[in-house]
Amino acid sequence: MSVGNPEFILDFEREARIGLEEAVYAAGKSPAQLDAILHAAAERGAAMLLTRLDPARFEALDPAHRARLDYCAVSATAVFGTPRPLTGHGRVGVVCAGTSDVPVAREAVRTLAYQGETAPLIADVGVAGLWRLTRRLEELRSLPVLIVAAGMDAALPSVVAGLVAGAVIAVPTSVGYGVATGGRAALDAILASCAPGITVVNIDNGYGAACAALRLLGAAQRIGVMQNQKGS
Amino acid sequence: MSVGNPEFILDFEREARIGLEEAVYAAGKSPAQLDAILHAAAERGAAMLLTRLDPARFEALDPAHRARLDYCAVSATAVFGTPRPLTGHGRVGVVCAGTSDVPVAREAVRTLAYQGETAPLIADVGVAGLWRLTRRLEELRSLPVLIVAAGMDAALPSVVAGLVAGAVIAVPTSVGYGVATGGRAALDAILASCAPGITVVNIDNGYGAACAALRLLGAAQRIGVMQNQKGS
Amino acid sequence: MSVGNPEFILDFEREARIGLEEAVYAAGKSPAQLDAILHAAAERGAAMLLTRLDPARFEALDPAHRARLDYCAVSATAVFGTPRPLTGHGRVGVVCAGTSDVPVAREAVRTLAYQGETAPLIADVGVAGLWRLTRRLEELRSLPVLIVAAGMDAALPSVVAGLVAGAVIAVPTSVGYGVATGGRAALDAILASCAPGITVVNIDNGYGAACAALRLLGAAQRIGVMQNQKGS
Amino acid sequence: MSVGNPEFILDFEREARIGLEEAVYAAGKSPAQLDAILHAAAERGAAMLLTRLDPARFEALDPAHRARLDYCAVSATAVFGTPRPLTGHGRVGVVCAGTSDVPVAREAVRTLAYQGETAPLIADVGVAGLWRLTRRLEELRSLPVLIVAAGMDAALPSVVAGLVAGAVIAVPTSVGYGVATGGRAALDAILASCAPGITVVNIDNGYGAACAALRLLGAAQRIGVMQNQKGS
Amino acid sequence: MSVGNPEFILDFEREARIGLEEAVYAAGKSPAQLDAILHAAAERGAAMLLTRLDPARFEALDPAHRARLDYCAVSATAVFGTPRPLTGHGRVGVVCAGTSDVPVAREAVRTLAYQGETAPLIADVGVAGLWRLTRRLEELRSLPVLIVAAGMDAALPSVVAGLVAGAVIAVPTSVGYGVATGGRAALDAILASCAPGITVVNIDNGYGAACAALRLLGAAQRIGVMQNQKGS
Amino acid sequence: MSVGNPEFILDFEREARIGLEEAVYAAGKSPAQLDAILHAAAERGAAMLLTRLDPARFEALDPAHRARLDYCAVSATAVFGTPRPLTGHGRVGVVCAGTSDVPVAREAVRTLAYQGETAPLIADVGVAGLWRLTRRLEELRSLPVLIVAAGMDAALPSVVAGLVAGAVIAVPTSVGYGVATGGRAALDAILASCAPGITVVNIDNGYGAACAALRLLGAAQRIGVMQNQKGS
Amino acid sequence: MSVGNPEFILDFEREARIGLEEAVYAAGKSPAQLDAILHAAAERGAAMLLTRLDPARFEALDPAHRARLDYCAVSATAVFGTPRPLTGHGRVGVVCAGTSDVPVAREAVRTLAYQGETAPLIADVGVAGLWRLTRRLEELRSLPVLIVAAGMDAALPSVVAGLVAGAVIAVPTSVGYGVATGGRAALDAILASCAPGITVVNIDNGYGAACAALRLLGAAQRIGVMQNQKGS
Amino acid sequence: MSVGNPEFILDFEREARIGLEEAVYAAGKSPAQLDAILHAAAERGAAMLLTRLDPARFEALDPAHRARLDYCAVSATAVFGTPRPLTGHGRVGVVCAGTSDVPVAREAVRTLAYQGETAPLIADVGVAGLWRLTRRLEELRSLPVLIVAAGMDAALPSVVAGLVAGAVIAVPTSVGYGVATGGRAALDAILASCAPGITVVNIDNGYGAACAALRLLGAAQRIGVMQNQKGS
Repeated sequence: MSVGNPEFILDFEREARIGLEEAVYAAGKSPAQLDAILHAAAERGAAMLLTRLDPARFEALDPAHRARLDYCAVSATAVFGTPRPLTGHGRVGVVCAGTSDVPVAREAVRTLAYQGETAPLIADVGVAGLWRLTRRLEELRSLPVLIVAAGMDAALPSVVAGLVAGAVIAVPTSVGYGVATGGRAALDAILASCAPGITVVNIDNGYGAACAALRLLGAAQRIGVMQNQKGS
Repeated sequence: MSVGNPEFILDFEREARIGLEEAVYAAGKSPAQLDAILHAAAERGAAMLLTRLDPARFEALDPAHRARLDYCAVSATAVFGTPRPLTGHGRVGVVCAGTSDVPVAREAVRTLAYQGETAPLIADVGVAGLWRLTRRLEELRSLPVLIVAAGMDAALPSVVAGLVAGAVIAVPTSVGYGVATGGRAALDAILASCAPGITVVNIDNGYGAACAALRLLGAAQRIGVMQNQKGS
Repeated sequence: MSVGNPEFILDFEREARIGLEEAVYAAGKSPAQLDAILHAAAERGAAMLLTRLDPARFEALDPAHRARLDYCAVSATAVFGTPRPLTGHGRVGVVCAGTSDVPVAREAVRTLAYQGETAPLIADVGVAGLWRLTRRLEELRSLPVLIVAAGMDAALPSVVAGLVAGAVIAVPTSVGYGVATGGRAALDAILASCAPGITVVNIDNGYGAACAALRLLGAAQRIGVMQNQKGS
Repeated sequence: MSVGNPEFILDFEREARIGLEEAVYAAGKSPAQLDAILHAAAERGAAMLLTRLDPARFEALDPAHRARLDYCAVSATAVFGTPRPLTGHGRVGVVCAGTSDVPVAREAVRTLAYQGETAPLIADVGVAGLWRLTRRLEELRSLPVLIVAAGMDAALPSVVAGLVAGAVIAVPTSVGYGVATGGRAALDAILASCAPGITVVNIDNGYGAACAALRLLGAAQRIGVMQNQKGS
Repeated sequence: MSVGNPEFILDFEREARIGLEEAVYAAGKSPAQLDAILHAAAERGAAMLLTRLDPARFEALDPAHRARLDYCAVSATAVFGTPRPLTGHGRVGVVCAGTSDVPVAREAVRTLAYQGETAPLIADVGVAGLWRLTRRLEELRSLPVLIVAAGMDAALPSVVAGLVAGAVIAVPTSVGYGVATGGRAALDAILASCAPGITVVNIDNGYGAACAALRLLGAAQRIGVMQNQKGS
Repeated sequence: MSVGNPEFILDFEREARIGLEEAVYAAGKSPAQLDAILHAAAERGAAMLLTRLDPARFEALDPAHRARLDYCAVSATAVFGTPRPLTGHGRVGVVCAGTSDVPVAREAVRTLAYQGETAPLIADVGVAGLWRLTRRLEELRSLPVLIVAAGMDAALPSVVAGLVAGAVIAVPTSVGYGVATGGRAALDAILASCAPGITVVNIDNGYGAACAALRLLGAAQRIGVMQNQKGS
Repeated sequence: MSVGNPEFILDFEREARIGLEEAVYAAGKSPAQLDAILHAAAERGAAMLLTRLDPARFEALDPAHRARLDYCAVSATAVFGTPRPLTGHGRVGVVCAGTSDVPVAREAVRTLAYQGETAPLIADVGVAGLWRLTRRLEELRSLPVLIVAAGMDAALPSVVAGLVAGAVIAVPTSVGYGVATGGRAALDAILASCAPGITVVNIDNGYGAACAALRLLGAAQRIGVMQNQKGS
Repeated sequence: MSVGNPEFILDFEREARIGLEEAVYAAGKSPAQLDAILHAAAERGAAMLLTRLDPARFEALDPAHRARLDYCAVSATAVFGTPRPLTGHGRVGVVCAGTSDVPVAREAVRTLAYQGETAPLIADVGVAGLWRLTRRLEELRSLPVLIVAAGMDAALPSVVAGLVAGAVIAVPTSVGYGVATGGRAALDAILASCAPGITVVNIDNGYGAACAALRLLGAAQRIGVMQNQKGS
């Protein structure tokens, strides 16, 4: 079943279909549209994740809705209603190169948390001071899945992927100026990486990286079942 | 230990470190350089995967080496020596939009096979004739990991990721002309996809997509072990 | 005949010549310039469509003019004076992928209405939830001409054009961030579509898409006359 | 029903679905792949249009197939088997700016002919010598649908669309050097045109422009039926 | 001789050297810097042209300086002190495609006036309504030098240069949205023009176009002297 | 009057209209098309300039035509028939930065010569060795019109325009590699020049620069007549 | 040893490792983050350089920190605590083309000063008035290392590098409009320079240019020691 | 004194002026032009370095010249006549990321050698296998100046510059495919590096990197003299 009005149709079955709930991308929507969406969610008793909700837009929401939102200004994300309990941990880590990459990294952390997965944030381990990275190498190697956020030259995913065996999901960020403006240089550097097996999502897309990690965890679970069936 | 000369150093420990053997990217190398590399591999008794080995360069190799190469002209890949036995299957599928995307898709299939993973190739299921895709939906949904190669508008990964819960690794291809030339349009379309959780590799990089899938399978295995440890 | 001053010349004969009245693109014009244009229209007793009239500029107009404007803030369009009566319907539909594409879609709907054509708005049918599209397929197939607005990966026009026989006029939108910024990715994806016979207009150009549909309706009428002449 | 092998699946129902037969884009395919496709078509007794079939590839086809192909080297198109009889005419015209745009224009003419529509080619009417265009204005105005191919500055579609009321489908071409290389300048000029209601297809895509015209003719026919029903 | 401080050096000899006085590009300068420059000019009793002086910056200048400035907000230009008397006329015309191009066109007109050349502004003669252009053709042909400002598809310079024998200096403008944003599409269209002998200056550079016209007038004068010397 | 076939229409009145004969851009045309054009010219007894005629295409022409062509392989230009006598000189100079820019510079020199204007070629005066330029400064200053061809950083036009009062028509060239590839860097550098009054033509467009100079000479002549009329 | 919190880790050993202290890039950081960093520095008694600290952010800092900052609004740099004494001079010069390039040039001057190196600022010597440059040539030649900041066409580094034997580190600036916007044209012009041996840093990166000069001075010192050891 | 013909002027004083001899960029020159240049050098008894001399062009030279050329096909460089003796060493190292970067690295090594500086080539130390780099760290730290050639993601210069105190001159290479094509991704990654003080030259410009190193060595020598004077 779906709830719709002439201009939006919420996809409440998405989780059943692809294992991920629909999130609301707030950037292009007016407070009125967002309130209508939250109203629809409230009516169903559904929880909801909002991304790209800048403080001005957050402040303009219906106070009744605002009271039910767990808002994080740094990552511009908000959780409406009760997210599911945290059940998974130790499976995904979120790494970022510099402090300017933290908002993107936190968007990933909070998206994972919303879907029940606790992920540590390993910040400011950019390659310009390699010791910051190598002293945490053991921790990085212990995590089967790593989300790596990096802007500017985005050398971090290449170096990490050369050091660990886990899955590496890179998020280029739009941090920087000059040729780094907008994040295309970071994106292209990661895509061109000579370290094999790195995957990438859109610039600044911490949410998407988290979703990719969640798809991967789902796949891992199914593969485990397969293996066990074969094994038994 | 490593084998090197002044101009190349093979990374035979790579698999121990990151779970993936080093492959040789043949495009930028002369036949003499390639023969030297194959000689080093032969001396160690190591197997080796070569990518981007066009027919002209293949023909120019030392006949003794050529005799030991399993060469596929469509994907421009070659396997030297004995790859490991095929042990995994039913875990990864390789999907492509049109027949022009087959070379890239096959590069992925052969890279997976080299590392012991059998993957079916599901070809010509582009969205312009949606029935070609939907009639194979059950098969697609049965595979935990999908590599999806698509060029031009690259709408296929978006549609697939909206229909399946598995991990989706997209490979944009450089198929097409006009604005499609070079594959940037396909790449950007995938990165901008509104279907959540798609990951991407470089244009035409079937090898990289396969490596990403292998990293993911490794992660799945470790997550399974974790779960079992917790469960027991 | 034309009405001009040293810096603008209105083209009141345009409709006679090409079947479309001149519309006023308000974005680059000062309120004083816009008031002068509306004054000229009022003097002739002419109706007029204004596009890209943001609220600030609208508020700055002469109150006497504002009173005669039917203004829509979402699409930033305004109709001055009395538009022609709605006579056509059931011939054109306006489809959009997400709620963020609604402003562009409404610009098309209102341009069509100004010229007498009623068009339904079919919103939020993006391909990430294909069921939203397929459940409305019959309606889409019943409309000979479809305007399809979509941003980000802009996969919707490709999928629609593979499912319907009607004319498809796509409008890429500048919705999104990272590689989607500005709408070039959406534009290129549509131009590169493997579904044959899609046409495109400039990014965010709902007005242009409506004009293209109106040209098409004019052509259809003339072709009908031809056929009848031949038939009789 | 469909005919397929592991690497291609022909969409013989496409015409029933969207009014356009599938054409074969030969550029990315080997002679062996093309021969297999032609074989499948021959077995069904189906006709087939091939585009981007350069002379070298044409010469490499099975002579038995070649004998049944009506090949045009200028436009690199070929028709296999018997196309449908020419029934429509006087409805679509194909216009081009310079002699270098003729290959693209002819691709459109031949695609239209393959589907039964005769279209005159009005060549070398670029705006640098405006008299070449204006002396044919009456003819241009008599045609309800115009395909306009132009490269370099691509000013022709703007000028034509300001002079005629018909539907205008523009095809930018990759003719030219310097900033014109590849055709992006021509494409952008057309998209940015101040003449309202021009639609565009991909660079050099004469085939796509013809398909768009055919969709339009189909829409016109349906609109005519609607009108008649309403009228009667 | 020159007047300088550690951070600017005025080039008062420029006119003697290249026939053009130095103008002050105000966009990147603080009011304090501008006041210092005007002070230096006042001390020498020199006149001065300022370009890109937006209203906010103008208002922030020393009132004593402001009182001596002839300011035009539309073109963001100001003349300080007494410009030279208007002596030339009938030699240069400034043409623009739409009313949104007027600011750029006026920058050219005012730069010419500052150096003593009167030039008529022929506005809103874009090619979408060709009659607006052709009815003024005689006037255009009577002017030996034409500056043509046009944005979006910038088809006007091509059409003009195909109709007149005079020198054509085109100025692309940044008017428009989507692919027209920033003016690159207009610039490329003009550079790619098939009408021979058009020259171009930077986007929105009305000042530069005027300087080019002034260089041309200087060259014409010298050529006249040569001819007369040869003739006598 | 004009001579045409379905695919080309020669514009023999162009000179009467805009002071420049039509030239034939050979790059996109087959030898057969070129021979047809030359045949048409021969029938009228007209001379003709061909540009971008590479040696292979030249060799493929009808020997009878070839015998009447004055061909220059360096600039890939050919003159058919008898050009007009050289009457003007000392008015235009062609300057180029490096020896790799000579082909473009010669295209300009030969186009000027075809229309009767002798122009000296001042080669290899790039700014990396400023003495090469300054020792010829007097000569440069004596020429009222300068065409300046430069690739790579294209600093030469800026330096020249800061030293001379004449008209400067710059031609960026596609010489160089890396960021210089294709000539866009050179083009942009010239457009962004801080030396006022430089005009630009398309990359490698020596022909266009010459046409611009010829337009300028025509304008100069008309201005001289004006002056004389006023003076008398 | 290092000082860290979950989101930043200062690299106080950087100078020991690479001869350069870590500077704080303030652009992407909140006042709270900056105060935390300054607090950590204060605790260690360390000095610190901040770049890209715009006035608004500066004003928002803890007044206790602000009191210890030597702030320069033009270059948006601030020095916290006591920088090292000025010991080097006469080794590095900072040159800039126009007054709009001064902010970038000053960022370089202040970074050098922070690390103990006095460098003269030689401003407004752009090539449009070559005399401004040549009259200071002796001074330029006396300085072994030159940082040259230039925007727009960025011809200055090419001309300087053709005149002096010293090391030339160029900084493109984002000064200008149209094709100069963002500084890519300036960057590419410098990279494509035909004067050999110019090196470049990111657009507007005065800080980076100073660091490069400091690395060079360090290298010079070590080379001097080598020479002396060999010599003795 | 200089030797010139109408189309080239050799700059034999360049070394006196800027410490670097002129090299001949062979890519854009015909064998005839190259032979003329070599002839001029031979007449003066001068040595000469040629870059970008591909094997085909080398083979086409006058055998007498060829006999005096020391040609290296890998780097496409040739030395004519007797280079100066090797006197410097231990001051510059040339590092490259992969074997495909060797041609560029060797161009640098040979340019240095031509001017008397021996530099070791440290190859295949890309960051995907960090151990290859770290095991040579001591050697890298012993060299005051490093030229680092890297393509694809070009992460190597960032990592090196974070580990060594020496001067780092990076050369992006055009190695790779997809987004790496042409080397722009590598260039931008280096320019955006977060490791401070890296300088960059044009893509594939090993020659320019060597020239920059030579300028730096010259500067070091002068700084040493200064220091000694001050010290004494």
